[in-house]
Amino acid sequence: MNAEKHLEDFVAGQRIRSGEFVATAELVRSFTQAYDPQPMHLDEEAAQASMFGGLIGSGWQTLAITMRLLVDAKLLGTTPIVGVALKDVRFHKPMRPGDVLTAQAEVLGTRISRSNSGRGFLDLLVITSNQLGERLVTQNWTLSVPSNSRAT
Amino acid sequence: MNAEKHLEDFVAGQRIRSGEFVATAELVRSFTQAYDPQPMHLDEEAAQASMFGGLIGSGWQTLAITMRLLVDAKLLGTTPIVGVALKDVRFHKPMRPGDVLTAQAEVLGTRISRSNSGRGFLDLLVITSNQLGERLVTQNWTLSVPSNSRAT
Repeated sequence: MNAEKHLEDFVAGQRIRSGEFVATAELVRSFTQAYDPQPMHLDEEAAQASMFGGLIGSGWQTLAITMRLLVDAKLLGTTPIVGVALKDVRFHKPMRPGDVLTAQAEVLGTRISRSNSGRGFLDLLVITSNQLGERLVTQNWTLSVPSNSRAT
Repeated sequence: MNAEKHLEDFVAGQRIRSGEFVATAELVRSFTQAYDPQPMHLDEEAAQASMFGGLIGSGWQTLAITMRLLVDAKLLGTTPIVGVALKDVRFHKPMRPGDVLTAQAEVLGTRISRSNSGRGFLDLLVITSNQLGERLVTQNWTLSVPSNSRAT
């Protein structure tokens, strides 16, 4: 896990599972105060009356926590995780204060970059779940990863 | 700007522009420490030696700041901004410590929900730029918005 990884280290179907991240009420509150200050995240009464029936976290924090989980899981070993694009980010259920999140990344495939023969693209399906195994967010990541191959 | 907005208040081509958000070195550091603790975000020397040539912010924070800018711009008036999906999130350039970010949302279209006649979907192209007018991130948002129409 602690070596530098290259594009050639990944094959479709491989899965990397993360540890756990506890989204405490305090962490949820401080994030939403800074980045998503809406009543459903900060006002207990307004949240109760909303379609969510109680306080929920920000989807942007669910995404940020997913990154932290996969950084800690050493998704690419010591190689930096550099995102190029996200596709089809779907928010299935909101994170709730106190939720315990886990993430899983599944390799969808690899592509050599045409413009830069020293690098390529790694496509991943990333799933973030709560402690009940419910999917909160699913997304497709495209990462820029160094490659051992040379384009011809 | 301070009224409740419905799906029918939006037409393709409308643009909402945000104010400014200063991504101070301290804010960039505290976010990356919490959610994206990688050398290119936290270690000046490693960042200098990287493909980025200096410290960069996390793309996840650029996304979170974009949300804050559009919450403050009252994108939907007093109607909660509830995201369903993100499509084609592209990270064109990294945010740098000290950057001043602005966001713009352009209405791409609206769709009545088939499953829930009281709500519909608002599709937006969201562009986040720095103080030089360079695009950092572009993305398509799908929001769930209350509708005045009834499906027939």
